[in-house]
Amino acid sequence: MNVDIINAFLGATQKVIKTMAFTECIGGKPYLKKNSVAEGDISGVIGITGASEGSLSITFSEPCICHIVSNMFGETITAINDEVKDAVGEITNMISGDARRELAEKGYVLQGAIPTVISGKNHSIKHMGKGPAIAIPFSTQAGNFIVEVCLNK
Amino acid sequence: MNVDIINAFLGATQKVIKTMAFTECIGGKPYLKKNSVAEGDISGVIGITGASEGSLSITFSEPCICHIVSNMFGETITAINDEVKDAVGEITNMISGDARRELAEKGYVLQGAIPTVISGKNHSIKHMGKGPAIAIPFSTQAGNFIVEVCLNK
Repeated sequence: MNVDIINAFLGATQKVIKTMAFTECIGGKPYLKKNSVAEGDISGVIGITGASEGSLSITFSEPCICHIVSNMFGETITAINDEVKDAVGEITNMISGDARRELAEKGYVLQGAIPTVISGKNHSIKHMGKGPAIAIPFSTQAGNFIVEVCLNK
Repeated sequence: MNVDIINAFLGATQKVIKTMAFTECIGGKPYLKKNSVAEGDISGVIGITGASEGSLSITFSEPCICHIVSNMFGETITAINDEVKDAVGEITNMISGDARRELAEKGYVLQGAIPTVISGKNHSIKHMGKGPAIAIPFSTQAGNFIVEVCLNK
């Protein structure tokens, strides 16, 4: 996976979280995910097709997503509920869309499918694509979250 | 969602589980999923594009998938491990592929993305597509599992 792709998803994540939730997030060093140990409480997952095939996921701890969604909604959210699930779907769509738009300008055209949202304490995700899965850790004032991209080229 | 689509996924599920794992599964009455309460311990999720857009998921309890994968591998599996995750990804791909092949013969052409596999005790899935999510419950001698299809037409 080339560095443009990783940078597009890294930049899109920071932009979407800042624009939607007025929350700064600091991107850590991307690493090759060798097993599915990254755990969280809620995830958005989206399939990617086109010039490359695979999947994107974004996984939050409950405190982290509650902070982000509280900022989005302008009211205090303290637990994962149906509105939080919808917000995670929307955030996933926007990160996918923003990164794909930037990559399309470089001639690398990807399509995003419809996201699904998984909730449950300490679940983990395994990407079944043929390519490597790259994990990008992010930190915010309310905790960490992780974006994973698995593409076959 | 028309009845041909539901029947294609119902039939594909029974065929794949029987062929791969020598396990009979009885399909229950499909119902409209109004909230994401269906819970399980491991799920395969796949995005669907083409004539209709949305997502497919298949969610197993741990005893149920351990029985199925034990039959597939010909050895006793007692807990979800990396091989079980790979098997769930493969089962998801095969059900998606078999159902889509049958639907294509009826002129309804869908594409499947790359699956992801989620594991974690009692997680639940919310499909973010615009259409209704239809849940098809299945029972086997080792427990129940559920297939969910959400398509926008």
